Amino acid sequence: MRAPVSRRARPAKAPLSREVIVRTGLKVLDRDGLDALTMRRVGQELDTGAASLYVYVKNREDLMDAMLDTALADVPLPAEGPWQQQVEELVVSATEAMSRHEGLALVALGGIPSGEHALRILDRLLALLKDGGLDDMTAAWAVDLLYLYITAGAAEQGAYNTTDRTQGQHLADAERLYAELPADRYPMITALRGPLLSAGDRERWGLQVLLNGILNTPAGGFTPADT
Amino acid sequence: MRAPVSRRARPAKAPLSREVIVRTGLKVLDRDGLDALTMRRVGQELDTGAASLYVYVKNREDLMDAMLDTALADVPLPAEGPWQQQVEELVVSATEAMSRHEGLALVALGGIPSGEHALRILDRLLALLKDGGLDDMTAAWAVDLLYLYITAGAAEQGAYNTTDRTQGQHLADAERLYAELPADRYPMITALRGPLLSAGDRERWGLQVLLNGILNTPAGGFTPADT
Repeated sequence: MRAPVSRRARPAKAPLSREVIVRTGLKVLDRDGLDALTMRRVGQELDTGAASLYVYVKNREDLMDAMLDTALADVPLPAEGPWQQQVEELVVSATEAMSRHEGLALVALGGIPSGEHALRILDRLLALLKDGGLDDMTAAWAVDLLYLYITAGAAEQGAYNTTDRTQGQHLADAERLYAELPADRYPMITALRGPLLSAGDRERWGLQVLLNGILNTPAGGFTPADT
Repeated sequence: MRAPVSRRARPAKAPLSREVIVRTGLKVLDRDGLDALTMRRVGQELDTGAASLYVYVKNREDLMDAMLDTALADVPLPAEGPWQQQVEELVVSATEAMSRHEGLALVALGGIPSGEHALRILDRLLALLKDGGLDDMTAAWAVDLLYLYITAGAAEQGAYNTTDRTQGQHLADAERLYAELPADRYPMITALRGPLLSAGDRERWGLQVLLNGILNTPAGGFTPADT
């Protein structure tokens, strides 16, 4: 039989702070999933009521925003190398960091990056694109597009991570599906089934597509003054 | 006082079918939002229990997949014009169709397109890219990338549509935020604030970036055989 422990002997509660709440939110998210992430649940985890959290965090949305930015805190800024390679490294690490926690990429999708770590990454991306010789407008829009690529890639990756299905299983499903398609209705998919399902570093190819495209598509022609 | 209506005088229930359930799901989603979309709620709407639905729909995920595909049913396939312009039209209409209902783009993100209407769009995109002279591998990967761009754009657009905030309000928020950033920590964002917040047809520019990039980036160099 375990000796009873007096309530007074319990360690004092950790003092609440925005940071503690955000770290706890990530813990709840990773352990119990997105649906379980409520203010009430995070409060329970901290041995307090949801009401006490509102001093530090406006609402669940604010909490998710802060969690997203904390997830980006460890993304290393590349130190050297040609600018294109540094952009690649940064995009790949940011995508990875964002996809590690269910649903965080979805928060980023459609939000304007506002956390200090997201902004740190964007600032560096801008610097790299300017190093690459892009004009201001194209560099600015390109950063937007790269951020969309990061969040979409992370959301896609996150979907694999959280459904207990690997990318390989997804491909196997697609293989079965595409093999059964009627060739008369879907002639191209049927004809290109091999290439469609082929393995390869699609993420890096996509990134290269973006960079090559950005270098060849000045934003100026798409701004209101020119149309 | 309204005359009482006999239960027997009520119109007969509409017969259940997968199509009726999917249309009802879209109705519930559009009226009450994503959180309200449960099998139980859709059943209520059809004056029956959730259990009766499972004959036609496997689960909520299957329902959402089918809703996504129904949303894509009305996307017109472009009839004429240069291939690049047709790709643009198709991507723009698919994005629009997908963003019209909250959360459907998120279903598409990370799933393999499997509905008949999604496949119809992909088949046409493949044909157009082949018309553009791309090799099979590059065309196949490009369709994947374009589908990611469609779903990400729709998710982003959908986030604006469902938060009662216009894109203009989002930009105004960003303007306030970026105006207050310390220039020493975020020198590039501060310097390029104007271009970052500038108006213009970013969606079409992004699409042009993708097409120019795809034309200049053969997938062959990124497949296992070549590395």
